[in-house]
Amino acid sequence: MGMVGGGKDAFIGAIHRIAANMDGLIELCCGALSINPEIAKASGKELFLPEDRTYLTYDEMITKESKMPADKRIDFITIVTPNFAHFGPAMMALENGFNVVVEKPMTFTLDEAKQLKKKVEETGLQLCLTHTYSGYPMVKQARAMIKEGALGKVRKIYVEYKQGWLSKLSEREGNAQAAWRTDPKKSGKAGAMGDIGTHAAHLAEYISGLKITKLCADLNIVVEGRHLDDDGSVLLKFENNVSGVLSATQIAAGEENNLKIKIYGEKGGIEWMQQEPNTLIVKWLEKPTEILRAGGNYANVLSSFALKNCRTPGGHPEGYLEAFGNIYHNFAQTLLAKLEGKEPTKEMLDFPGAEDGVRGMAFIENVVASGQSKEKWTEFII
Amino acid sequence: MGMVGGGKDAFIGAIHRIAANMDGLIELCCGALSINPEIAKASGKELFLPEDRTYLTYDEMITKESKMPADKRIDFITIVTPNFAHFGPAMMALENGFNVVVEKPMTFTLDEAKQLKKKVEETGLQLCLTHTYSGYPMVKQARAMIKEGALGKVRKIYVEYKQGWLSKLSEREGNAQAAWRTDPKKSGKAGAMGDIGTHAAHLAEYISGLKITKLCADLNIVVEGRHLDDDGSVLLKFENNVSGVLSATQIAAGEENNLKIKIYGEKGGIEWMQQEPNTLIVKWLEKPTEILRAGGNYANVLSSFALKNCRTPGGHPEGYLEAFGNIYHNFAQTLLAKLEGKEPTKEMLDFPGAEDGVRGMAFIENVVASGQSKEKWTEFII
Amino acid sequence: MGMVGGGKDAFIGAIHRIAANMDGLIELCCGALSINPEIAKASGKELFLPEDRTYLTYDEMITKESKMPADKRIDFITIVTPNFAHFGPAMMALENGFNVVVEKPMTFTLDEAKQLKKKVEETGLQLCLTHTYSGYPMVKQARAMIKEGALGKVRKIYVEYKQGWLSKLSEREGNAQAAWRTDPKKSGKAGAMGDIGTHAAHLAEYISGLKITKLCADLNIVVEGRHLDDDGSVLLKFENNVSGVLSATQIAAGEENNLKIKIYGEKGGIEWMQQEPNTLIVKWLEKPTEILRAGGNYANVLSSFALKNCRTPGGHPEGYLEAFGNIYHNFAQTLLAKLEGKEPTKEMLDFPGAEDGVRGMAFIENVVASGQSKEKWTEFII
Amino acid sequence: MGMVGGGKDAFIGAIHRIAANMDGLIELCCGALSINPEIAKASGKELFLPEDRTYLTYDEMITKESKMPADKRIDFITIVTPNFAHFGPAMMALENGFNVVVEKPMTFTLDEAKQLKKKVEETGLQLCLTHTYSGYPMVKQARAMIKEGALGKVRKIYVEYKQGWLSKLSEREGNAQAAWRTDPKKSGKAGAMGDIGTHAAHLAEYISGLKITKLCADLNIVVEGRHLDDDGSVLLKFENNVSGVLSATQIAAGEENNLKIKIYGEKGGIEWMQQEPNTLIVKWLEKPTEILRAGGNYANVLSSFALKNCRTPGGHPEGYLEAFGNIYHNFAQTLLAKLEGKEPTKEMLDFPGAEDGVRGMAFIENVVASGQSKEKWTEFII
Repeated sequence: MGMVGGGKDAFIGAIHRIAANMDGLIELCCGALSINPEIAKASGKELFLPEDRTYLTYDEMITKESKMPADKRIDFITIVTPNFAHFGPAMMALENGFNVVVEKPMTFTLDEAKQLKKKVEETGLQLCLTHTYSGYPMVKQARAMIKEGALGKVRKIYVEYKQGWLSKLSEREGNAQAAWRTDPKKSGKAGAMGDIGTHAAHLAEYISGLKITKLCADLNIVVEGRHLDDDGSVLLKFENNVSGVLSATQIAAGEENNLKIKIYGEKGGIEWMQQEPNTLIVKWLEKPTEILRAGGNYANVLSSFALKNCRTPGGHPEGYLEAFGNIYHNFAQTLLAKLEGKEPTKEMLDFPGAEDGVRGMAFIENVVASGQSKEKWTEFII
Repeated sequence: MGMVGGGKDAFIGAIHRIAANMDGLIELCCGALSINPEIAKASGKELFLPEDRTYLTYDEMITKESKMPADKRIDFITIVTPNFAHFGPAMMALENGFNVVVEKPMTFTLDEAKQLKKKVEETGLQLCLTHTYSGYPMVKQARAMIKEGALGKVRKIYVEYKQGWLSKLSEREGNAQAAWRTDPKKSGKAGAMGDIGTHAAHLAEYISGLKITKLCADLNIVVEGRHLDDDGSVLLKFENNVSGVLSATQIAAGEENNLKIKIYGEKGGIEWMQQEPNTLIVKWLEKPTEILRAGGNYANVLSSFALKNCRTPGGHPEGYLEAFGNIYHNFAQTLLAKLEGKEPTKEMLDFPGAEDGVRGMAFIENVVASGQSKEKWTEFII
Repeated sequence: MGMVGGGKDAFIGAIHRIAANMDGLIELCCGALSINPEIAKASGKELFLPEDRTYLTYDEMITKESKMPADKRIDFITIVTPNFAHFGPAMMALENGFNVVVEKPMTFTLDEAKQLKKKVEETGLQLCLTHTYSGYPMVKQARAMIKEGALGKVRKIYVEYKQGWLSKLSEREGNAQAAWRTDPKKSGKAGAMGDIGTHAAHLAEYISGLKITKLCADLNIVVEGRHLDDDGSVLLKFENNVSGVLSATQIAAGEENNLKIKIYGEKGGIEWMQQEPNTLIVKWLEKPTEILRAGGNYANVLSSFALKNCRTPGGHPEGYLEAFGNIYHNFAQTLLAKLEGKEPTKEMLDFPGAEDGVRGMAFIENVVASGQSKEKWTEFII
Repeated sequence: MGMVGGGKDAFIGAIHRIAANMDGLIELCCGALSINPEIAKASGKELFLPEDRTYLTYDEMITKESKMPADKRIDFITIVTPNFAHFGPAMMALENGFNVVVEKPMTFTLDEAKQLKKKVEETGLQLCLTHTYSGYPMVKQARAMIKEGALGKVRKIYVEYKQGWLSKLSEREGNAQAAWRTDPKKSGKAGAMGDIGTHAAHLAEYISGLKITKLCADLNIVVEGRHLDDDGSVLLKFENNVSGVLSATQIAAGEENNLKIKIYGEKGGIEWMQQEPNTLIVKWLEKPTEILRAGGNYANVLSSFALKNCRTPGGHPEGYLEAFGNIYHNFAQTLLAKLEGKEPTKEMLDFPGAEDGVRGMAFIENVVASGQSKEKWTEFII
């Protein structure tokens, strides 16, 4: 693995390294860790990278690594820069034969996303999009149950993502995370809807197996002086005329990272909360609520998709880093299978990809357009 | 107290009797308990009513009771019939000098509601509307905290009310409750939005102290063959440009009576769930979350409005019937104070009234209109 | 109903009145409400008792009431005085043909308890002991499930009762409740073990259906200056060689009324918490945990014993007062059935009685003896 | 790092590798992974170990590694064999100048433990004992708060550890974990008390800062045919005359890994549950309960000991593997500091060591002796 971005002054890079590292299949071999050469070098040293593989630009990294012998060359490149700087390294990596892991949202614009997707299809390479929350085993369990029809026909989807960390104008108080995420030039057209709304939308589509078809958005800038939405709620229509509601806010003072989803079908409903991720609540119309729990020992209860993503027996809580690790693990196993000429299993292939990336960018564009429209329902256009 | 409706075949009448009875201030003295004379008589007997005060119609009851001497005559009439039969007895009671308790929604149409409100104002009598959930002490605590500015300026309101009991077409399977509540001739213009949406809207306005000003509704009939909405979500604007979301559904299979509200201000947020009503979660932007608990012994923590509505010390759970009882208790104390020529305290007067009834009916009319409109935002018109 | 004790300055009397009153079967007709004549009279007036049935002593009340005609005379006497003043009125009531409701612990000494029990058996009258917590529907559900063998053979019982209200020497700071409950002359041999330990022991025996046979107690006076135990833990053996642990403390600062019980059998376990009483958690060895909920609409899930003690559908929380009301309701229905010459059903008879009162007093004596013993295990002697 | 035990057929070895690997400071360089040479070799290959550092015995590994040049030689040896095989490699490692990580309980007998402790003191090397649960940040927060006196003088300690996985005689059904853990020759004198009771005892002493001084144990073999205790409860006395209760059971059918601790002081109490480890509940005598949460962004709330052991901001749950990782991380930082000639900080040194190991073995010996004694209280002897 080579990393673009993620120097010592960044947040998500460290998370990616722990996640990639977790299951012993992936090693960080090189990096272009910062646009600041000082930081790039210092970060490389801190991460025990050899000096000659501590690059100053992604261009240099991709160019030099692509010339290395196959047994030394990295297999993929992870891109953890701010949104506006995803497309360049991702496209160049694909063009040079490297698989790619990229933070969400996949790109800065929908058009870039479509180009990447096209390139992925042309090259046959793998692109992995780190929609972390779909890496949790109980999310996969919910998806599997709905797919198998356990709840009957899906009827209603509620998803909410509440944070409070942008309750003040922190972007003016030296908070680097806040600064780029609320800056239209770095973040893109949307603020909260891009940063966390895309996670919520992806989760809803991933678990329900249904795609958004129409939407009606109310986007707000609550904190005066901010340049992008920090709060919003969206009425949704999904395929099969299923309705839903998505809320995403970063001004819910006192909330941490409160992502919840509830999906109801004819026979029952599921409820999952990211802050207690090892539990899946399954409510039934005509029998008692059941509490399903993550754990590698629940082979008689959990689907193969959930089980594959548990490392420990029930009662040994796994969390955010493990969910992140699952995405890397599945991606790495897919690459390994392909290297060995084998067909990856459908459990291995269960990580978000370019198609999810395009839908995420389309969500941003559509939700912003709807927010500005006087019309009630607008079509979800890609 | 005299009761209209609430015979042995009814549901909510029994609840009203327990609630009224709870604190020893109110006695059931007469009733017109059913339009079916057999049931009316049998119910009167079962409730130990004297035969001569077991009436067959509300007309008869009001006429005869109004002629009784002051020390025997009832002080108020409780109306627990289906929605379409609220206005008649309520208006007649007021016209004959009786105070009134009436189930929500107050009337069948907004116009009736306005007439009742006008009559209340003219007569100076009390009308109490049983929006039960505002009777819980921790709801009152939340309202008091927001009023005092503990959370800073309110920024966002989420309220949801999820039930699952109409997941099937139960109105065709002999469920009497389902039958009248889904029948436009008995229930009114709205189904779920009238039955439970009005509770949610009232709770949001009651706790936040802010009135709804605009709305954008998505109403659905999910169960095929039904004649009124059984599901809906509404984007809201409140005074002060506060935005919100209200969801009400009766097809969330596996849900019981899951009413939740979350309100966020600049400094923190409150969270209350009807199914665990003795707890108020208070989240803070810059300090740990606090768990406030109901209990008559928490004089140093709770507001006078909350304390007055607790009967027991902390840890002795009070529930739905006690919340209902609080409404009756406050109403009865208001009547007593007036009988004794005293000014009721503001804590006594803390029960929903005719103004809330008008707003509830307006909510129904507005939400139905918005649901049918292609326009995004419609004004909340009374 | 006539009441002994429970004047305006008391706590539990008001609770008994709400509970007795709840279901419309019981009316307070007379009382000897205080040993202070002023308070007795004022309390009677406040409760709308006729002056001639507002007595100054229980002796006067029982004597006069027993001479009244059958259709006016009370059916039973409720005793809500401090522990040392239970036996006198209870015995006199039974001797004069009145049924009795008495607060726990039943008496001041084990010997008194045995006498009462004997008198109950001789007279055929009903004695009801208000172990409130056994009145909760989900407690009855747990008992029914264990009785039916749903958990297999019971293996382990944990019961804990934690309060914090005696964390300070409140008995010296004008707290009347604290004063008598920590006074050996009014409370008896035990403090916390008598006040709340007896509830815990009763609950364990009631739900499990197993009787305590041996015990090993550690009793402590934690707050300096106190005269009775305010904290204790007891290792237990029950019938069938089942082991258990009981903890009762009143110095757990920050706890309200935290009574919890967990019982495990071969196939699964139950968990119930008084502070969330409408939920029964059922854990299974080989399938997901189930959440059983109180509610009159769960006829397909709950036992007849649980269902009979629900007034509302699921999701309308019932609490402490309703549990208390269930005890009175069942007791009243038993009396009514007998008055009508019918056999009370086993669901009606499901309230604690004289036998439970004797076991409670024996628990106090045994646990105090064990606490003082250097021997590990002592037999539970009656 | 070199590993003894933990081949492909083992459980805890994989956990140790993830934990050691998590923060990028530790690399697995060699191993004697199994007493079965086939498994040892296959496991080494799977873990990408070089063939010449894949050893067949710990003796071989320690001998050869100790002869390597300093820059290639491992810094420490991790021992993850069953209990009976801890002492040999640990002692030999220390004698050859290697630091040691060892699974709990530290040894097979108390005597061995004392020898190890002595050797650690003589050599000045570090020994780290993986009492995982003390690695959680909110456990460290609880300890820090008690140490600082936030709760006032500690008064009562409750700790319970409930599992259900030995509800059947699984040791006879091919469960390898069950087989050695219930075998006195491999596990030691105690079953559940050794396997999980030692964790509970360590947690109680670690958080409270108080040592056990006396105990009174009830140990049981519940599942017929088993050779070691699978259930037990212990009355405890700690320093300062604080009393407590410890329960440990592996026959609580339906429980996963339910470790809970509650400690009460004069002013309030703390409550922590391993299955929701990111939350610390702090109850107060005279103000509302507070919910403290793990998260690297809570610098104004959490102690330095808690903060150092968080990798992510609040709301990104960290779990068992991260807690385990914290122990390795602190241990590794201590070694690094010493290598660099620096004094490790007290936060770095916050991992369990040889003294904890001796106390753990003493707990096993004392609790077994007390279980067999007819005396109530026995002294905790080392």
